[in-house]
Amino acid sequence: MAQAIRLARQGLYTTDPNPRVGCVIVGDGEQVGEGAHLRAGEPHAEVHALRAAGESARGATAYVTLEPCSHHGRTPPCAEALVNAGVARVVCAMQDPNPLVAGRGLARLREAGIEAVSGLLETTARALNPGFISRMERGRPYVRLKLASSLDGRTAMQSGESQWITGPAARADVQRLRARSSAVLTGVETVLIDKASLTVRAAELGLPAEQAEQAALRQPLRVVLDSQLRLPTTAPMLSLPGRTLVVTAQAESTSAAVALTAAGAQVLALPGTDGRVDLTALLSWLAEHEHCNEVLIECGATLAGTALRAGWVDELVLYMAPTLLGSAARPLFDLPLEQMAQQHRLQLIDTRQLGDDLRLTLSCRKETD
Amino acid sequence: MAQAIRLARQGLYTTDPNPRVGCVIVGDGEQVGEGAHLRAGEPHAEVHALRAAGESARGATAYVTLEPCSHHGRTPPCAEALVNAGVARVVCAMQDPNPLVAGRGLARLREAGIEAVSGLLETTARALNPGFISRMERGRPYVRLKLASSLDGRTAMQSGESQWITGPAARADVQRLRARSSAVLTGVETVLIDKASLTVRAAELGLPAEQAEQAALRQPLRVVLDSQLRLPTTAPMLSLPGRTLVVTAQAESTSAAVALTAAGAQVLALPGTDGRVDLTALLSWLAEHEHCNEVLIECGATLAGTALRAGWVDELVLYMAPTLLGSAARPLFDLPLEQMAQQHRLQLIDTRQLGDDLRLTLSCRKETD
Repeated sequence: MAQAIRLARQGLYTTDPNPRVGCVIVGDGEQVGEGAHLRAGEPHAEVHALRAAGESARGATAYVTLEPCSHHGRTPPCAEALVNAGVARVVCAMQDPNPLVAGRGLARLREAGIEAVSGLLETTARALNPGFISRMERGRPYVRLKLASSLDGRTAMQSGESQWITGPAARADVQRLRARSSAVLTGVETVLIDKASLTVRAAELGLPAEQAEQAALRQPLRVVLDSQLRLPTTAPMLSLPGRTLVVTAQAESTSAAVALTAAGAQVLALPGTDGRVDLTALLSWLAEHEHCNEVLIECGATLAGTALRAGWVDELVLYMAPTLLGSAARPLFDLPLEQMAQQHRLQLIDTRQLGDDLRLTLSCRKETD
Repeated sequence: MAQAIRLARQGLYTTDPNPRVGCVIVGDGEQVGEGAHLRAGEPHAEVHALRAAGESARGATAYVTLEPCSHHGRTPPCAEALVNAGVARVVCAMQDPNPLVAGRGLARLREAGIEAVSGLLETTARALNPGFISRMERGRPYVRLKLASSLDGRTAMQSGESQWITGPAARADVQRLRARSSAVLTGVETVLIDKASLTVRAAELGLPAEQAEQAALRQPLRVVLDSQLRLPTTAPMLSLPGRTLVVTAQAESTSAAVALTAAGAQVLALPGTDGRVDLTALLSWLAEHEHCNEVLIECGATLAGTALRAGWVDELVLYMAPTLLGSAARPLFDLPLEQMAQQHRLQLIDTRQLGDDLRLTLSCRKETD
């Protein structure tokens, strides 16, 4: 199963909106086939592994990181393929996270007389697909908030000057975060002031050339929160590869909306009660209409504070440079609190050094989530 | 030598003001003796090791983390002891850091026909004694600044409320930092507001009981920066084990100085040109008069900012809790900067998780130091 999980990671940047899945087939104590799902519409991991195993699959054990599908999607159901190949046993890391279908694949296998179990290395397997699981279980994407700061928690000087706080290794890591995301979300201010393009650039991913090119082929959907539609039609991101969704709080179609649409953007109106975009509705919309699994938020202190307070953020990825920008510099979060009791406690789940910088990964979920 | 360095660490909390030193004697390919210096006035590491080796020391090799002394201090010179024991070879990790005596121990050994070399695992051995080396080479202690903050670089709420940001494992680590320091320095505000006692408490060190008791026997000198002598004679720290040095900027003796002296404090006047204490002079004074090797600063944002700007800080130890205190909370450093070019860049030298918190250790020295 550990090998199947490693295989699944081959699809980290490319399977979207499908989950990353790996499969290993073992017969007579030896591995006889392996496979990974690489791209939506292409064969699932089980099919690759069965093809590699050929006749050796008969009587063998298949290890799969996710319960084999039992429905006809863009490809035939993998449960049928495993039955037809004559495997004796199927071990899954986890059930299908969609509560409406979970267990059907296992049931189909058992009907055919195959021993089918689930739960081996489940935690590790779930970590492959936090977004797919979130979309299936909660109807919303898994939301990462990425911020870069100094040791003293500052993202920019008071003037706005900020390039570059972190080094090239941290910036390449941000590119990889974008590349694995279904969508990258920001506020219009960040686009206007920082000229953020939100694109994945193959040369900056820090991956082997072929993998980098494959990753950059699929650009994440760019989502710009722009209550008043201030994004100019000349914004560079509108002519870059990939799509741009501009979300406004203006219920009626305006000339700005027409012009942005003509310039290549998709304009979506999701007015909230406070005159701003209804972000809860947007997350549901992204899951339902765009099948977004993982959404990366890259933004300034205002949106970061709003997103945190509203509970949209599942994970905070903080790139911290070993530098001090001082007490007049801009804060990480626009988050006015008065008492220790109001503090936002997070759980540190990973620490890694990237060049001179640190990457801290923190879970923002409450214990009760 | 690696074993000698491990032995030297036995004296981490107790050798002050002497350096931590370990020694291993190897004869015929086997270790025949080992020793560590444990307390000033007691035998040096070499003497312990030679005693353990007995006659086996003849023709053996001695590994010592610091060049053996050649002068009569509180104990006879170790170079003589090695000569008298008949060792054939002495390997040191580093020379004596005092430029006036460096090499004399090695020279004495060579005069007696012993092969004597230095430089094995030197970097690791130097890290045992940053304070002793700093005092010998620069005439000032090695200064650590300890701060505790949230992820967003805040040390307290605007109201001052701060207990507790970090957890028990981090607080025990601070106790160990105090226990290895010759002096703990703070501002009078921290004593008045936070009721800081700056003592080492055996029960809070997180060490085995016997080691903890030994460590707490030697209390670091408490140094309070108190320009206007506002420390009350009733301050709890004046009646706790260990000594308190109150440093004032008032050149003339005042009634407050007399009262504090009567209450058990030592009062030192070191007026600077700005009406505050001359901290550069204080560091030299602590090295010269108190033989301070390592000084730990525990303070608020004002003194932290001043110390950093003045270049007094060699090392920053930052305990970071996985929490957000928000943008209205107090900053790590009172450090008003306007441009990125003014940023204080540090070098990250260690990252460690302590309970739920992170400990970041950073060098503040400029590359040219």
